[in-house]
Amino acid sequence: MESDTKLNQQNPFLDGTHDPSLISWLDSANGHPFFSIHNLPFGVFKDSDGIRRCGVAIGDYVINLHKLWADRPFTGKAGEGLEALNDTSLNRFMSLGREVSKAFRQSLSKALTSGSKWESSIRKTLMPMSEVSLCLPCHIDDYTDFYTSIHHATSVGKLFRPDNPLLPNYQWLPIGYHGRASSIHPSGTQVYRPVGQCLNPTTQTPELTATAKLDYEVELGIFVGRPTPAFEAVAIEQAEQHFFGVCMLNDWSARDIQAWEYQPLGPFLSKNFMSSISPWVVTAEALAPFRLPPTRYANRPKVPSLESYENSVFGGFDIQMTCHLRTAQMRKNGIPAKKLSQTSFKHAFWTINQMLSHHTQTGCNLNSGDLLGSGTQSGPNAAEAGSLLEITRGGQDSIALPGNEFRGFLEDGDEIELSGFCESENGLRIGLGSVVGRIAPAFSSPHLSKQAGE
Amino acid sequence: MESDTKLNQQNPFLDGTHDPSLISWLDSANGHPFFSIHNLPFGVFKDSDGIRRCGVAIGDYVINLHKLWADRPFTGKAGEGLEALNDTSLNRFMSLGREVSKAFRQSLSKALTSGSKWESSIRKTLMPMSEVSLCLPCHIDDYTDFYTSIHHATSVGKLFRPDNPLLPNYQWLPIGYHGRASSIHPSGTQVYRPVGQCLNPTTQTPELTATAKLDYEVELGIFVGRPTPAFEAVAIEQAEQHFFGVCMLNDWSARDIQAWEYQPLGPFLSKNFMSSISPWVVTAEALAPFRLPPTRYANRPKVPSLESYENSVFGGFDIQMTCHLRTAQMRKNGIPAKKLSQTSFKHAFWTINQMLSHHTQTGCNLNSGDLLGSGTQSGPNAAEAGSLLEITRGGQDSIALPGNEFRGFLEDGDEIELSGFCESENGLRIGLGSVVGRIAPAFSSPHLSKQAGE
Repeated sequence: MESDTKLNQQNPFLDGTHDPSLISWLDSANGHPFFSIHNLPFGVFKDSDGIRRCGVAIGDYVINLHKLWADRPFTGKAGEGLEALNDTSLNRFMSLGREVSKAFRQSLSKALTSGSKWESSIRKTLMPMSEVSLCLPCHIDDYTDFYTSIHHATSVGKLFRPDNPLLPNYQWLPIGYHGRASSIHPSGTQVYRPVGQCLNPTTQTPELTATAKLDYEVELGIFVGRPTPAFEAVAIEQAEQHFFGVCMLNDWSARDIQAWEYQPLGPFLSKNFMSSISPWVVTAEALAPFRLPPTRYANRPKVPSLESYENSVFGGFDIQMTCHLRTAQMRKNGIPAKKLSQTSFKHAFWTINQMLSHHTQTGCNLNSGDLLGSGTQSGPNAAEAGSLLEITRGGQDSIALPGNEFRGFLEDGDEIELSGFCESENGLRIGLGSVVGRIAPAFSSPHLSKQAGE
Repeated sequence: MESDTKLNQQNPFLDGTHDPSLISWLDSANGHPFFSIHNLPFGVFKDSDGIRRCGVAIGDYVINLHKLWADRPFTGKAGEGLEALNDTSLNRFMSLGREVSKAFRQSLSKALTSGSKWESSIRKTLMPMSEVSLCLPCHIDDYTDFYTSIHHATSVGKLFRPDNPLLPNYQWLPIGYHGRASSIHPSGTQVYRPVGQCLNPTTQTPELTATAKLDYEVELGIFVGRPTPAFEAVAIEQAEQHFFGVCMLNDWSARDIQAWEYQPLGPFLSKNFMSSISPWVVTAEALAPFRLPPTRYANRPKVPSLESYENSVFGGFDIQMTCHLRTAQMRKNGIPAKKLSQTSFKHAFWTINQMLSHHTQTGCNLNSGDLLGSGTQSGPNAAEAGSLLEITRGGQDSIALPGNEFRGFLEDGDEIELSGFCESENGLRIGLGSVVGRIAPAFSSPHLSKQAGE
C-alpha cells in the first residue's frame, strides 16, 4: 500500500507514537477498530453535572481530561496542552499549535502504554464510551466548504452544465465558498426535511414545498489549529502548522432548492439548514502514517504558489470513507445497512495544506476551531460517488435496496452513516468514527401555512 | 416626504422618544447631525485600561455604560438591559430582544432630556468622542450577504451575463450567500490591496497578481437581536422581533479575482480579505420614524410566505447612504472629497424582515450579533450606483476627479467613506455615522514570491 511505502521513507511526521508494536494496559484499546493507542482523538462531552469537558477516546472508554488535569501528570509542552484542555471546548488547545499537540500526544501515548506509572491515574478518569454524551468539539467561528474532488465536480457539472462540466478555474485554484457555522450539529442530531422554494417542474413556477431531493454529501471536515494573522498569506510550507485534525462531515443538501436558488451567488438555504460532524477529532499527528503523495492528475497545471516539496511527497492522506444507508423498514426487519459508497480522501485534487494556504491568499484570517469541508469526496469509480446526486444522476436512476425498496433521494426515516478510517498493511489502524443522521418529516412551517392561505 | 406621511399614520413603532420637540440637557446633542437625542446608537470602545466597554453616542460624547451601570439608574426591563450592557460586547443585550431595547431606550431618552434628575449621574460617564477608540460592536458568529438591490443585480448582471442580466429567481426570493465573519473589521482599518489569482486578459492564463480592480460596495449592515431557534422557520410577522439595528457596511471586492474564481459556488477570496463596518449600531427603535412602505416594483410576483400587512406598510426604511472618495493627492492639496454616489435603502427589492424570515426558511438558526449585509444598494439612477463596477462599467469608463485625476477602480492611498443618515421634514435626523477605509499597497506575499521563483 502507498501508505506503507511512505513509512519506509523518511517521513518526518512519524515518531514513537506510531510504532505498531505499542501495547496499551487497557485491553479494549488493543486491536480496537477505531480508537487504538495509535489514534487518541479529542472530543467534548457533557459530564454528569451537564458541564462540557474535553476527552480523549481510547478503546471503549473516554478519558476525562478535567480529572486527569487534577493529577498534573505531564510537564513542559504536554503540561501546557493539558492546562488548555481543562476547558469546555478544544479551541484553546487547538490554538497552541502542533508542537503542543505533538508533545501532549507523546506523553499520553506513554501513559497509556503497558507498564506506565500513570496507569492508575488514568484509570480513575475513564468513562465507558457508551455512557458518554458527545457534543461539538469546539466553537466553530467560520465554516468554509471546498470542492476538492475533481470526480465530484465533473459528475455534478455534467448534470448542471452538460456542455461545460468542469469549469476552467477548477485545476488552477481550490474552489471554495463560505458555509453556515451556526447550523453545524453533532452526530445523532435529527435532520428535518427542509421546506423551501423549488421550481415546480410541471408549471415551471416556483413554489414552497418540502424538498423531494434530500441528499447527503460524504466529506472530510478539517479543523484549523493555530490561528493565522489577518492580512497575511500563509505560505504552503507553513500551512501544516495551522492544521489541527479531521472529522467526518455530512453536508446535507436539498437539490431542488439548490437548483433554483444557487445562481448567481452559490448555495444558501439548500445547505444551511444543517451540516453534521462526527464527534472525535483525529489529529494531524495521528494521521502521520497515512500520508502519501497527492494523486497526480494528468495535464495538471503548475501553480507555484500552492506547490512545495513537502506537499508533493506528504500532502495526501489515505483516509477511507464509507457511506451506509438504513431505512426505517430495514431497521424494523433487522436488515443490515446498505453500503452506498466507499472512497478515499487520497483522490482529492487539492490537499489540506493547499486549502489552508489558498484560504489566506488575499489576507483572510483563520481562527482556531474554524472548519473546512473537503467537498464531496467522490473517487474515480462509480462505487466511490459521495452523494445520491451522482449515484442516481439527480434521481433519474433508483438504487435498489434489500427488502424491495428503492431510493432516488432520501425518504423520511432513512438513516445515513458516514465513517472514516485509515489502515496500513503493517497493522496500524485508526478510525475517525462516524456521523449519523436520521431524516425526520418536515417541521410545521409558518411559511408553508401562509402559502396555503391559512 | 414619505417618512412624514408615515408619522401621521398609526405607526405602531413610534413612541415618546421620537418626539421632535425633545431637548437634551447636553448642548452638543441638540441639532447634532448624527447623534441627537433621537438616535442613541450603541457601540463598543476600549477604555483607558484597554478593556472593552459598551457605550451610547450622544452629541459629541460617548456614555460609558459600565460607569452608568454602577449607579443603577433604571429598573424593570430597562435595568435588565443595562445589566446586559455591562459587558465587553453588545451580544448579550442584543439577545434580550425588542422589549428590552425599547425599554432601555425610553429610560435613557428620559434621562438625557432637559430637567432629568439623572443629568449629573450621566455627566460623570461622558467621554469626548474624539478621545474614544471604537471596536467592533459585537462578536459576529456568522455573516450573510444579500443582494437586495434589483438595480445593482441588473447592472452587474449586464456585465457578467449581457444576455441574461436578471436571473429568473431574483424576484421570487432574497438571494443571499454566506460571507466570512473573521475578516470583518471596524471603520478605520487599512485595506491592503489583495494579491490573488486573476485571468491575464492578454495570455488568457491565470496568474497571481495584486488586484487591478479593487472596489467598494455601499451596503447596509443589519444585526440580529434575539436569536432564532434551530429547525424553526420564523414567520414574516415575527421577523421584526429578531431585528436589532443597522450600521454601514463596505464589502470591499476585487473584481478581477472575483470574475475568475466565482463559478460555480460564488465569490470567495475576492471578498473575504476584508469587510468594514461603521462602529455605531442604530437600533430598530431609532429607525421607527423613517419606516415606509417598500418600493412597489411593477409585475412583482406574489410570494405569500414573505408577505404581511406590516411588511407592506412599514417594511421599508428611508436610510440615505452616501459614498465619498478622497485620493492621496486630494488630501495633500486640501481638495474636499468627491461624492461618488447617494442612494437610499428604500429602493431595496427585499425588506429587512423578508431577509430575516427567508434566512430561517429551511431551519437555519440566527445568533445574536450575526450580521446580514443588504448587498450593494444601488438606486434607479446612475448617480445612485453603489460600486465602481457599476459607475465605470467594470473600469471601461473613468471617473474624473478634481485635480486632474481619473479612476476606473481604487488606487493605493484612496480613501472611501460611506455614511448613512435618516431625516424627515419635521426636523428629525439621525445618523449611522460612517465607515472609512484607506487603500494600502499589497502586503508582501509569499505566494507572489513563489510564483516569481524566489
